[in-house]
Amino acid sequence: MIKVGIVGGTGYTGVELLRLLASHDEAQVVAITSRGENGRRVDNLFPNLRGYYDLAFSDPDIETLSACDVVFFATPHNVAMRMAPELLAAGCRVIDLSADYRLRDHERWSQWYGEPHASPETLAEAVYGLPEFNRHEVAKARLVACPGCYPTAIQLGFMPLLKAGLVDADHLIASAASAVSGAGRQAKIDNLLPEVSDSFKAYGVSGHRHLPELEQGLGDIAGAPVHMTFVPHMLPMIRGIHATLFARLSEPTTDVQALFEDFYANEPFVDVLPAGQYPQTRTVRGANRCQIAVEVPQGRDTVVVMATEDNLVKGASGQAIQNMNILFGLPETLGLVQLGLLP
Amino acid sequence: MIKVGIVGGTGYTGVELLRLLASHDEAQVVAITSRGENGRRVDNLFPNLRGYYDLAFSDPDIETLSACDVVFFATPHNVAMRMAPELLAAGCRVIDLSADYRLRDHERWSQWYGEPHASPETLAEAVYGLPEFNRHEVAKARLVACPGCYPTAIQLGFMPLLKAGLVDADHLIASAASAVSGAGRQAKIDNLLPEVSDSFKAYGVSGHRHLPELEQGLGDIAGAPVHMTFVPHMLPMIRGIHATLFARLSEPTTDVQALFEDFYANEPFVDVLPAGQYPQTRTVRGANRCQIAVEVPQGRDTVVVMATEDNLVKGASGQAIQNMNILFGLPETLGLVQLGLLP
Amino acid sequence: MIKVGIVGGTGYTGVELLRLLASHDEAQVVAITSRGENGRRVDNLFPNLRGYYDLAFSDPDIETLSACDVVFFATPHNVAMRMAPELLAAGCRVIDLSADYRLRDHERWSQWYGEPHASPETLAEAVYGLPEFNRHEVAKARLVACPGCYPTAIQLGFMPLLKAGLVDADHLIASAASAVSGAGRQAKIDNLLPEVSDSFKAYGVSGHRHLPELEQGLGDIAGAPVHMTFVPHMLPMIRGIHATLFARLSEPTTDVQALFEDFYANEPFVDVLPAGQYPQTRTVRGANRCQIAVEVPQGRDTVVVMATEDNLVKGASGQAIQNMNILFGLPETLGLVQLGLLP
Amino acid sequence: MIKVGIVGGTGYTGVELLRLLASHDEAQVVAITSRGENGRRVDNLFPNLRGYYDLAFSDPDIETLSACDVVFFATPHNVAMRMAPELLAAGCRVIDLSADYRLRDHERWSQWYGEPHASPETLAEAVYGLPEFNRHEVAKARLVACPGCYPTAIQLGFMPLLKAGLVDADHLIASAASAVSGAGRQAKIDNLLPEVSDSFKAYGVSGHRHLPELEQGLGDIAGAPVHMTFVPHMLPMIRGIHATLFARLSEPTTDVQALFEDFYANEPFVDVLPAGQYPQTRTVRGANRCQIAVEVPQGRDTVVVMATEDNLVKGASGQAIQNMNILFGLPETLGLVQLGLLP
Repeated sequence: MIKVGIVGGTGYTGVELLRLLASHDEAQVVAITSRGENGRRVDNLFPNLRGYYDLAFSDPDIETLSACDVVFFATPHNVAMRMAPELLAAGCRVIDLSADYRLRDHERWSQWYGEPHASPETLAEAVYGLPEFNRHEVAKARLVACPGCYPTAIQLGFMPLLKAGLVDADHLIASAASAVSGAGRQAKIDNLLPEVSDSFKAYGVSGHRHLPELEQGLGDIAGAPVHMTFVPHMLPMIRGIHATLFARLSEPTTDVQALFEDFYANEPFVDVLPAGQYPQTRTVRGANRCQIAVEVPQGRDTVVVMATEDNLVKGASGQAIQNMNILFGLPETLGLVQLGLLP
Repeated sequence: MIKVGIVGGTGYTGVELLRLLASHDEAQVVAITSRGENGRRVDNLFPNLRGYYDLAFSDPDIETLSACDVVFFATPHNVAMRMAPELLAAGCRVIDLSADYRLRDHERWSQWYGEPHASPETLAEAVYGLPEFNRHEVAKARLVACPGCYPTAIQLGFMPLLKAGLVDADHLIASAASAVSGAGRQAKIDNLLPEVSDSFKAYGVSGHRHLPELEQGLGDIAGAPVHMTFVPHMLPMIRGIHATLFARLSEPTTDVQALFEDFYANEPFVDVLPAGQYPQTRTVRGANRCQIAVEVPQGRDTVVVMATEDNLVKGASGQAIQNMNILFGLPETLGLVQLGLLP
Repeated sequence: MIKVGIVGGTGYTGVELLRLLASHDEAQVVAITSRGENGRRVDNLFPNLRGYYDLAFSDPDIETLSACDVVFFATPHNVAMRMAPELLAAGCRVIDLSADYRLRDHERWSQWYGEPHASPETLAEAVYGLPEFNRHEVAKARLVACPGCYPTAIQLGFMPLLKAGLVDADHLIASAASAVSGAGRQAKIDNLLPEVSDSFKAYGVSGHRHLPELEQGLGDIAGAPVHMTFVPHMLPMIRGIHATLFARLSEPTTDVQALFEDFYANEPFVDVLPAGQYPQTRTVRGANRCQIAVEVPQGRDTVVVMATEDNLVKGASGQAIQNMNILFGLPETLGLVQLGLLP
Repeated sequence: MIKVGIVGGTGYTGVELLRLLASHDEAQVVAITSRGENGRRVDNLFPNLRGYYDLAFSDPDIETLSACDVVFFATPHNVAMRMAPELLAAGCRVIDLSADYRLRDHERWSQWYGEPHASPETLAEAVYGLPEFNRHEVAKARLVACPGCYPTAIQLGFMPLLKAGLVDADHLIASAASAVSGAGRQAKIDNLLPEVSDSFKAYGVSGHRHLPELEQGLGDIAGAPVHMTFVPHMLPMIRGIHATLFARLSEPTTDVQALFEDFYANEPFVDVLPAGQYPQTRTVRGANRCQIAVEVPQGRDTVVVMATEDNLVKGASGQAIQNMNILFGLPETLGLVQLGLLP
């Protein structure tokens, strides 16, 4: 059994790791940390876990965590980059769900996050954990930087087109929308139900922190620099991301449906829908799955891709476990066969 | 492997049976019927099932269904009572999620449902499937009438008090609230999102069809006639039932917390919360579980019980599978270990 | 024109006062305070007000406020009781939407609010502002304590029965539910959309701060002590309160429908629905109106009353303006004719 | 007083006309039709109207309607085009909220709506009622075709850019999202709360009926043909439209903020937000207002416009009344000063 530690267990990606790992046959959570809830039983804070975990939150402590085979950081940015080096030195593997190791360039990181990177020397060995792009790299890693929730859906959506060199990579457009859980379990007026329910808005239009990650990742996929206009929106709902992607086709006559179906034919967690059917966030609710559709409206020269995922699963904790499975040589789907909860 | 047939597969309890049975090790769905969607793949209608079922809807046909070991009726009332006798004669077991076999008295049934009962002679062998009350009866049954969604939560909530003879059974009060999926997947203006979202209302106050079922079931539990005032409400949400129950205590000094904890100590699917913690529908979302709290406000003589469940799981399809497990001598929890999806 | 000051303008009752007063012909908001948002334009924080107010938040300052004819406190408790005496001394009228002056007995107040009352000597002149019960007292007041949101609906629902002496006042039951805006515009994890959306729960069952207010107010109505079991619930929605009330009838044969219709025949803001029609919170969304239905299920001896209101309007800011109209001898309905926003 | 008739009063645009006209000083609703609800009081179906209307639905009858000064069609398409000619002949003015008269070319109409146009000869005198574009034409009209909900927001969002010739009009992109009330008050499984709540999806990507209207309208604005990729989405909420618009700037250095502010400086119902502030659908809930923001992310060459409106007000009934005011020479804002309901 893989001994698992989780840093930052009181957030949404933390409780989601617990939910998913409860049915994972080869992993067991042995430590879960929280400064604020130190000593409180996890099933007292999250009663959905009652009967599944006999565990309490503890203070984040390098010694305890070092005894784990793998440590997940389910924290806001600025935590993993302080603790990871020591854990790696102690022989742990680290899977970071936060933004700390997503950008290769620490100056770019500083520019977007407004503070110096705390362990720039560790950045070099961080592997970006988008398995559908680079699972072979992940398999050899000690430190995995899980992609952001938006970047997962957007990269999976653009990947077949960019790999095939079919679109103008200089003017990619992503109009994406996330449920509120993407903003984390933090006390903010902006995310109170009366502020965001029954409403919709764009945010971060002038520059969202996922933009540099997107341009880096899509550039890696394309093998050349790309430029994107990225407009995120806030959805009045709990879970789910939907990305609507636009690009100019260089060869409008391409059968994009076949392209996508072939590209993802062997991927267990990417599901290209039949022509004419569009994804809904609800059909992947709670599942580690990205569902995708592609369309060329009116047969013109603009291709539209729609990609959905559960931001807490394929967009975060599920993908993190997928990376863990790869790291430890387990079947990639182990513990990740939950079906979407519909309705 | 138990061969399973499902009649009425396009409704919410139908798709929920499919979701849950996909991870059941001893059962396989071999037939699922729908007149309206005959020939359509189930995963085309319900894309959360893609990759889990290679099955299409078929016309309801006694011959096909007869080849099953067990047939679930996930239909509105008035279907099971027409088909069950023939299936039973063919050796099938029948688990009815509808109201057709819930009332022992066919005249009372007719009075509340506004038409004659189609197979009153079969009523005698129907067993009411509330395992926490009568699992030994269920184990011997061929025909199980699964309780309604409200009656499940309300009976589980009142059971310890009634069994202990602690409350005035002549004036029970249930103020309960259900999510909209309880109204079924049927085209009705009343259940459109703009009609029920961001709103709350009572309905059926003068007499809801679950009232006779409740008074019959609670009477069986109490061993004497009971009378209840039952006010159901419609919640602006997808899944979940919450029942708030009130009764006059005959012995106000009783330790009701201990009473409930002891009563349900060995029940896998009924979870009495620690004193002071109240249930939320979201902590049982997608789980076959009823979470209960009990309180005597201000130490007076009125006891308040709060009971929550997912109306589609413990209130319907999960409980139906729990009954199937009992019928076939399997562990009662088989295939029913999904954790609640929180948030 | 009445010069209006508002203390605590960044909360939900504050912005609702602004919305409603924007179309009031005889009142003008001249000062609105907020320590945190001092200097910020109100229409920057609340863009629905753009074009209607040329006003910025200022620090709460007795001098400025003293120049107003009336000052509304749209604050949490513990603010009005510190500032009201000075404003009253300066000749202002004070309308307090918070809990500070609702209980006549300052010791009882301290017991429920966990601190001493700051101006117990002022309590004696506070008038409880439920116009349908005591508008003549309000007309003569200098200091009005507006009822809580739950107490407004619950008292209006029970009033006809208590005045007629028709129910057992020793065992009143109120199962009520409020939208999340009732919890205020404050940064709390518990009220984030992912915590409360698509879910339902009871809270404060062992004792909610509205209980002593309810027992005091209902006792005044009944002319004798009453006892209530009060269970509030949290609804996954923005606005609205629904109270479901239960009581034992002493004379079950009474025509309660006629009783309610007669009782409220001349009330502009209480609307008794025709027999058989039940209220929904959405039909009073944004309107200063309480809609009520009454039913005696199965013709037994328990009466059920359903009462709805918008917690921010008839449950707070609308009623406060109604009180202002009475205080200043204006028509009670002035500025309060907004229709409910349906859907 | 203008005598108003409404055809199709049971839908969402019908009840919204009634809500808004209740506070219109110069208009009075004298007839409202519905085949299905003939004889039922409007306030029985829509209890938010209790006390404001003493009116019942009647059968649509040319004679009664002909006695009106103006008749609104709040119907699905295919009704107005059959009745309008006769009403016009009788001297009525007609304001059509449906799609029947929006396309000038009846063959194009047939192609998108799948049936012949019933009164192609009347199309020539229909005026497209987007007042901010052509209020002078509207003032002279007898028959006004109100824009669709999406086209209103999208045209207002693109108008300043197209008028200034600043964008590549051959590759406009609109990623827009509508609340469910946009789909009408019709019994459809697809719009049940459990189908659309807590979820998000695109629809009509291959071709939505608003596309030809958009290309016609935007072409009129630009004075040359335009091409648009239009992706509508369904939001899990009651009211509101948000359009996110993308276009390639021909002169990236333009001060688009100033352009928009100047363009709409004198428009009462179009509100350009200050730089850096983005619109939310909730701030225009219930108000006849379009709020707009514009941004050029990262200073590159793609401009992003965000435009919000309440789909039932500025996107339908409010704009229809605005057109009525223009038709009858009244102040354009009469009866349309409702503030947005926030929260």
